[in-house]
Amino acid sequence: MALGLEYDGRAFCGWQSQPGGCGAQDALELALARMAGHPVRVSAAGRTDAGVHAMSQVVHFDTATIRPQSAWVRGVNAFLPASLRVQWAQAVDADFHARFSAERRSYQYWLQVSSVAPAVLAGKVGWYHRSLDIDAMRAAAAMLLGEHDFSAFRAAECQAKSPIKTLYQADIRQHGDFVLFEFRANAFLHHMVRNLVGSLVYVGNGNFPPSWMGELLLQRDRKRAAPTFMPDGLYLTGVHYDPRWGLPVCSHGLSLLE
Amino acid sequence: MALGLEYDGRAFCGWQSQPGGCGAQDALELALARMAGHPVRVSAAGRTDAGVHAMSQVVHFDTATIRPQSAWVRGVNAFLPASLRVQWAQAVDADFHARFSAERRSYQYWLQVSSVAPAVLAGKVGWYHRSLDIDAMRAAAAMLLGEHDFSAFRAAECQAKSPIKTLYQADIRQHGDFVLFEFRANAFLHHMVRNLVGSLVYVGNGNFPPSWMGELLLQRDRKRAAPTFMPDGLYLTGVHYDPRWGLPVCSHGLSLLE
Repeated sequence: MALGLEYDGRAFCGWQSQPGGCGAQDALELALARMAGHPVRVSAAGRTDAGVHAMSQVVHFDTATIRPQSAWVRGVNAFLPASLRVQWAQAVDADFHARFSAERRSYQYWLQVSSVAPAVLAGKVGWYHRSLDIDAMRAAAAMLLGEHDFSAFRAAECQAKSPIKTLYQADIRQHGDFVLFEFRANAFLHHMVRNLVGSLVYVGNGNFPPSWMGELLLQRDRKRAAPTFMPDGLYLTGVHYDPRWGLPVCSHGLSLLE
Repeated sequence: MALGLEYDGRAFCGWQSQPGGCGAQDALELALARMAGHPVRVSAAGRTDAGVHAMSQVVHFDTATIRPQSAWVRGVNAFLPASLRVQWAQAVDADFHARFSAERRSYQYWLQVSSVAPAVLAGKVGWYHRSLDIDAMRAAAAMLLGEHDFSAFRAAECQAKSPIKTLYQADIRQHGDFVLFEFRANAFLHHMVRNLVGSLVYVGNGNFPPSWMGELLLQRDRKRAAPTFMPDGLYLTGVHYDPRWGLPVCSHGLSLLE
């Protein structure tokens, strides 16, 4: 069975199950076990960090329990905290794997640029206090597209086998006081999006020219890139699978107007 | 001195000062007292309920303490919880009163219409599980415009001297999964916007025809109108004063794209 999930990253200590039970995975597995009548272990497309949100996380789990589809959505939601919702449920072949079958992941980063920090959207958007040069950030982001060794943007704890990933999208747009970053890749390294945003902000504020981004890629040295940006504005917005799995095509961001 | 404020309504038990100190007013007065060096009492343009947010609340207070403008913004913000921010500060004449000088107030209500409740925006938007007829709601809302006795939408605890208010705007727009209600009036009764949204939803879901809204106004009976809608999606988005007071013109909603 595959599920689509939305959750508020601030309500959990990250996606992954923890001994104290504070992971979003813990809350979900507990609710699924109540519905399935047996212990359930789920696998997710992306292991989001503490404070990182998901609009379209995808997980799968094995069960022999037969329930109507609504039980896996509305029924399970009744057992979940309000900060975690099952959006859809779909029976899948036994060889489907939420993580290994995923072909591409999409992330958004919402950055509020204002002299005063956000209050209503605190925790839901990142914040930077000085104006940013969008064109310079765009020029820098364009150098990231394609297949690269992203070691400069890889957390020390990263468990990925290879630092080589293919970035298909690195868009940057301004919407009023907000800068929206959109990234799509076959897969992301640990902290990769937050590290990319941090370095792009270092270009946008004039600390470095756009060409610095190309140098960082070539140097493959995490210590030369900017610090990891705050998790608050980061959203897992979509996971793409081959259509043969028959999953609903769900990809949506935070935006209230899109 | 006048201040513009943004706050997350979920972090407080409403705007107004409470014996336990849980009101947004309590947090602000504490921070202002530290900056002013004496106890401070503020008056606000609108007394928002528990769970109701403000993007542009306006308050004033009296002080003989001279501080640079940045002290009343960044300095006071350093003493405030992250859920409450001072956006601007402006010296004003002694006869300015945030409440009595206000000529118009604006509110937005963001309603998510989806089978599954919001997780990331829980507490930040209202939620309705069935589709709504926007045109029918618009026709109903049009009957509210102008000067009316709004007793049908007035909470029992309302302390306003008169139930007669003038509504200048009652717009309803669809943005993807969201319905955005925008209201502007000289003043609002207690719970008035939430009561209007509740009855408009009763029109949108087909329970009543648009003409029901006109009947409710004429009957002036709170018991005939729909229940008070949840506070989660309600935002005080602007307070309008005569330009002679010299206040910054600040009116903004939740929208990430406007």
